[in-house]
Amino acid sequence: MSAHPAVENAPRYEDSAFMRACRGLPNARTPVWLMRQAGRYMREYRAVREKVSFIELCRTPDLAAEVAVTALDAIGADAAILFSDILLILQPMGMDLEYLEGGPVLHNPVRVALDVERLREAEPRENLAFVFEAVRKTRERMNPALPLIGFCGAPFTLASYMIEGGGSRNFENTKRFMYADSGAWHALMEKLVRGLTVYLNEQIRAGAQAVQIFDSWVGCLSPGDFREFVLPHSRALIAGIEAGAPVIHFGTGTAPYLETFAGAGGDVVGVDFRVELADARERLGDMAVQGNLDPCVLFAQAERIFERAEDILRQGAVRPGHIFNLGHGILPGTPVDNVKRLIAFVQEWEAEAE
Amino acid sequence: MSAHPAVENAPRYEDSAFMRACRGLPNARTPVWLMRQAGRYMREYRAVREKVSFIELCRTPDLAAEVAVTALDAIGADAAILFSDILLILQPMGMDLEYLEGGPVLHNPVRVALDVERLREAEPRENLAFVFEAVRKTRERMNPALPLIGFCGAPFTLASYMIEGGGSRNFENTKRFMYADSGAWHALMEKLVRGLTVYLNEQIRAGAQAVQIFDSWVGCLSPGDFREFVLPHSRALIAGIEAGAPVIHFGTGTAPYLETFAGAGGDVVGVDFRVELADARERLGDMAVQGNLDPCVLFAQAERIFERAEDILRQGAVRPGHIFNLGHGILPGTPVDNVKRLIAFVQEWEAEAE
Repeated sequence: MSAHPAVENAPRYEDSAFMRACRGLPNARTPVWLMRQAGRYMREYRAVREKVSFIELCRTPDLAAEVAVTALDAIGADAAILFSDILLILQPMGMDLEYLEGGPVLHNPVRVALDVERLREAEPRENLAFVFEAVRKTRERMNPALPLIGFCGAPFTLASYMIEGGGSRNFENTKRFMYADSGAWHALMEKLVRGLTVYLNEQIRAGAQAVQIFDSWVGCLSPGDFREFVLPHSRALIAGIEAGAPVIHFGTGTAPYLETFAGAGGDVVGVDFRVELADARERLGDMAVQGNLDPCVLFAQAERIFERAEDILRQGAVRPGHIFNLGHGILPGTPVDNVKRLIAFVQEWEAEAE
Repeated sequence: MSAHPAVENAPRYEDSAFMRACRGLPNARTPVWLMRQAGRYMREYRAVREKVSFIELCRTPDLAAEVAVTALDAIGADAAILFSDILLILQPMGMDLEYLEGGPVLHNPVRVALDVERLREAEPRENLAFVFEAVRKTRERMNPALPLIGFCGAPFTLASYMIEGGGSRNFENTKRFMYADSGAWHALMEKLVRGLTVYLNEQIRAGAQAVQIFDSWVGCLSPGDFREFVLPHSRALIAGIEAGAPVIHFGTGTAPYLETFAGAGGDVVGVDFRVELADARERLGDMAVQGNLDPCVLFAQAERIFERAEDILRQGAVRPGHIFNLGHGILPGTPVDNVKRLIAFVQEWEAEAE
């Protein structure tokens, strides 16, 4: 009866709850995974990081695969996500990237048109082979019944790091750049999109079953700025993903213009916790939705975690195509037991509701 | 024909464009003022600050009046705002407040229920007399045809500073506190509301024609958390303002639940730049609206500033009751000439459209 009938000997992940939700197909229960599920809140991850730096970990496929698979198994999520970082693609473009205690720093920020011209093409096949190798190793070692998610940063979020030279509160330099020289801005975004398109397609070819595009800081923009400076580029990136895998387009603070954000394309819109999931579902129609528990709720007592999770599950279940997730990445210090409880609760809730 | 007919010898500010807009009355042109219009972007302000610290400036009514009036006259806005800071009310409550280069710090953050019990009542009449004196002096010295806006921080934003001990990215401690001990949370909010209610009423009695409540960080909450932990308290504060002045309720990131936010009451809803003003006007019906140019646009060329301002003016003009403002405070480094150009443009635009 399904539009995507399972082939007899197709890999088992093809019919997993996660893949079905990405395609908007009915599911017996809501699939769940958590952004940064392999991160600093896990003891096993911290143990690896005592031996290698963050960047070494990302650049060592064996270790990247190990932390991704360890986390998947430990918490029992319905999908693994590649262990990597959105900023790595900026290094071959010529950005001097360093991860410091307070966050990532780019020592040579892009500030004028000439800086954009000087940036090299990312050429991911040559320069980011370790990422595709990490995809292959993770895929080999993980539960064959579950899908692996590849990812990249969205062009806006990457451009904002390049221009600010790191994180930012007001994204003042980024906006000044956009307003002052929109030609250079669009050239920068186009250069990013060229690299990111190859990057995602190659992750898919290496074994990722789905990809997520993280537009983590896009919520700093007015709806008008989003339409003018970002939307065409996010749309071009998504349109260029031809390797055949669902695309999750995640952004924070997108509630004011969710329909426009979704207009960039893709299969699933990832929303943060600042919007009611019921509202997102209504506004996005048949498009699948991912989200959206506030990561801070994971610091609360189990009772409140379950209450909030149930609220989201109910809102998500109005139609097929809901992937349960947080509204942003897990915070350091989150109790692992609460993460496990949440995942078990989500997986059991739907089973009970059948 | 008006519901608020001008009395023959009423003060001239009563019939100003700003006061009329607060009351939703038709105006010949859109009034404009800018959050932080007396701030660090102004040379005159920086000159005063070379002589006194920020906190001394706030506590010295003569100087506070001087910077507020100087800014009003320099940029030609349609209203002055009291020069003060939302955190000052926390000192008499027992918080150890210090303004450092990186922002305000509260050295004794509120972390457990006992901390809330130990907090004193603010008793603004006794402890914040210098603020009311600043209101009186500003009112005396400023253009009698223009209104003066008093203000306070909203209970949520103040509570978040008290709990985080300063600014925050994820407001993790605040949320943990809310979830872990909602009784202590509500007690903290109630204590704040008691002080803030007196504080605003006394500002009005001292000569403020309108008051603004700044909920600068409320956008970090999910709509459900806003309803449960914030809305009843903001509503109690606004309901307690009986001294007879319009109330502007400003919040950032409120687009996902603007109707709920507006349900707290008041006369004007202040919105940030993350929502289309047309959308806000439609969703808020007859309620007056204030906003919402992205403060970063003031770094752009005049042409783009005017284009964006005109867009907002058009969206605001669909019905009476629009006050032009930024979507957040002016950023340090903003060119003063751009601020003046913007204000003149807004004031002339409506004149041309007549």
